[in-house]
Amino acid sequence: MTYSIQSVSTQFDQEIQATIDGKTKPLGALGQLEVVAKQLARVQATSTNKVDRLVIKKPQLIVFAGDHGVASEGVSIAPSEVTGQMVANFAQGGAAINVFCRQLGWQLSVVDAGILIAPEKELQVINQRLGTTTAPLHKTQAMPLEKVTQGFAKANQLIKQVKDKGSNLVAFGEMGIGNTTSASAIMAAIMQVCAKDTVGKGTGVTDEVVLKKQQVVEQALVLHKEKLSDPIQVLACLGGFEIVQITGAMLAAAQENMHILVDGFICTAAALVAIQINPTVKDYMIFAHCSGEKGHIKMLEWLEVEPLLNIGLRLGEGTGAALALPLIQASAAFYNEMASFEQADVADVV
Amino acid sequence: MTYSIQSVSTQFDQEIQATIDGKTKPLGALGQLEVVAKQLARVQATSTNKVDRLVIKKPQLIVFAGDHGVASEGVSIAPSEVTGQMVANFAQGGAAINVFCRQLGWQLSVVDAGILIAPEKELQVINQRLGTTTAPLHKTQAMPLEKVTQGFAKANQLIKQVKDKGSNLVAFGEMGIGNTTSASAIMAAIMQVCAKDTVGKGTGVTDEVVLKKQQVVEQALVLHKEKLSDPIQVLACLGGFEIVQITGAMLAAAQENMHILVDGFICTAAALVAIQINPTVKDYMIFAHCSGEKGHIKMLEWLEVEPLLNIGLRLGEGTGAALALPLIQASAAFYNEMASFEQADVADVV
Repeated sequence: MTYSIQSVSTQFDQEIQATIDGKTKPLGALGQLEVVAKQLARVQATSTNKVDRLVIKKPQLIVFAGDHGVASEGVSIAPSEVTGQMVANFAQGGAAINVFCRQLGWQLSVVDAGILIAPEKELQVINQRLGTTTAPLHKTQAMPLEKVTQGFAKANQLIKQVKDKGSNLVAFGEMGIGNTTSASAIMAAIMQVCAKDTVGKGTGVTDEVVLKKQQVVEQALVLHKEKLSDPIQVLACLGGFEIVQITGAMLAAAQENMHILVDGFICTAAALVAIQINPTVKDYMIFAHCSGEKGHIKMLEWLEVEPLLNIGLRLGEGTGAALALPLIQASAAFYNEMASFEQADVADVV
Repeated sequence: MTYSIQSVSTQFDQEIQATIDGKTKPLGALGQLEVVAKQLARVQATSTNKVDRLVIKKPQLIVFAGDHGVASEGVSIAPSEVTGQMVANFAQGGAAINVFCRQLGWQLSVVDAGILIAPEKELQVINQRLGTTTAPLHKTQAMPLEKVTQGFAKANQLIKQVKDKGSNLVAFGEMGIGNTTSASAIMAAIMQVCAKDTVGKGTGVTDEVVLKKQQVVEQALVLHKEKLSDPIQVLACLGGFEIVQITGAMLAAAQENMHILVDGFICTAAALVAIQINPTVKDYMIFAHCSGEKGHIKMLEWLEVEPLLNIGLRLGEGTGAALALPLIQASAAFYNEMASFEQADVADVV
């Protein structure tokens, strides 16, 4: 799977910076919002023109759900059935992600990427099933390689639809009992650190279960050792159906020149893989938050990125990304609407 | 000046916690939003009833502007005239705070608390002038004691009007060349730390100017030493007209049972004084952000509070408070709208 992702334009950097610095505020006083505005402007610039007005159009959040074979090893406080129950909750509008999307103006879609019990037909869930559940990653490959290719193709198609409907910003969320184990394994494989440094409490397991998770991840890393230098193999060996599709969706979104708002631990694991596959995808990514899940801050540091929020969220579903949207919109808004020193007749010394 | 601020209700804490814990999410997984929801519920509970639905009504942001005698000592990169120029910018809708208030649904008012050149009459600026500028705090009292009383009375009246119009949440912003020097002095006086630990770069002065600011603050602390155990005297000796009115407005808002969203360095200095005057006011305060100004994080730690945002803002005007509103609204929204495990038929193990 190859992606032709354009490098973002840097040729107007000076003009973009001049626009930001000309606003009636001390230099750099809007902190990370200035960084985001610059990134938005780079992505939105054409090859011949600096963008004069930043736009965030029809922000779209897509929650991918998948079940994990490893869940039966007792690495989570909840059984796999809860994945399907939460998918139904998403479809009925009762989960946190529904509340935040309604509040903040996100369009929300829910994708069954492969869960144990397929959702009832009357529920509005997009069927992109790659199976019922992955295989336990510490005993065998989580899925055959062709499932990764299939997942990427499905994600690609979905992103094209979203783009066609007029969106230029996407975020992804996830649901999948057992998926912090999978994400920890991916993190360890890509960052080449040991299980101990990647495994955390997930939804809130005991210290004993954390140890069990570590053992499972360590075992998986040993088992698949030979294959883990290839990011596609990392997904096949250690991934989940939802993680595969999120990875593919990130690459597809960058290919479509869309902004990507990256959520927490699981989505950042997908981002790690996507960046391995094509490093240019990173230019399109804005990191929404630092989650309470132990490994997340290490991932963000490794990627050398600054998340926007750090409020102890550890829910997944894309909730961190959803909550960061107003900060992205504020970045665009100050760039578009603030008066310059000249316009406002304010002495340009502050 | 005494304030009768009611202690917030804690008698329904168990029920409030049960409501939060019953939502379809792992325990505590919404991090600081859960803390905010609990605080909103405490303030909104009546003496006989737990609140079933949290409301944020007509959020009101008030920017207070004041000029500082100490500015003529060269403690800032801008001359005092810029205060008035920025007030005109606020009134004309061109500043960062205007942009964010429009974006996020704040009602915005601008108050002339006492600036060098009174704003032109046609501008929509509320006249609450306590003078043209304070006296240089390192040479004499910044203002006579009765100015503090007058400022509190004016702030009181304004908050009553805001309450009467149906708002239950206020935030304050400030503009005043020289006011980080005043706020640093207040911080040093209340927290009993030395000038070196409170003085920062403000709008971006050189290291040389930082040293000058430190000397000025040190000098002021020595000069007024005998009086600084009384918070009202702290304001008279070291304050600014805008800081006085913000302090009074915070106390008045708590008296009116309103939520108070506290902005950055200057507003937190006002909060320090308000809490000294009546500690109960703190129960009504939500701390919006940690600013880039050096002393702010120390103030927040001293108060033992967790700010919501930490994105390097150092602009003032209330911009940090403005940007935190969606997180407050999200806290209310999840409390009101998320399905419980029972409602959603999700197994209560996550």
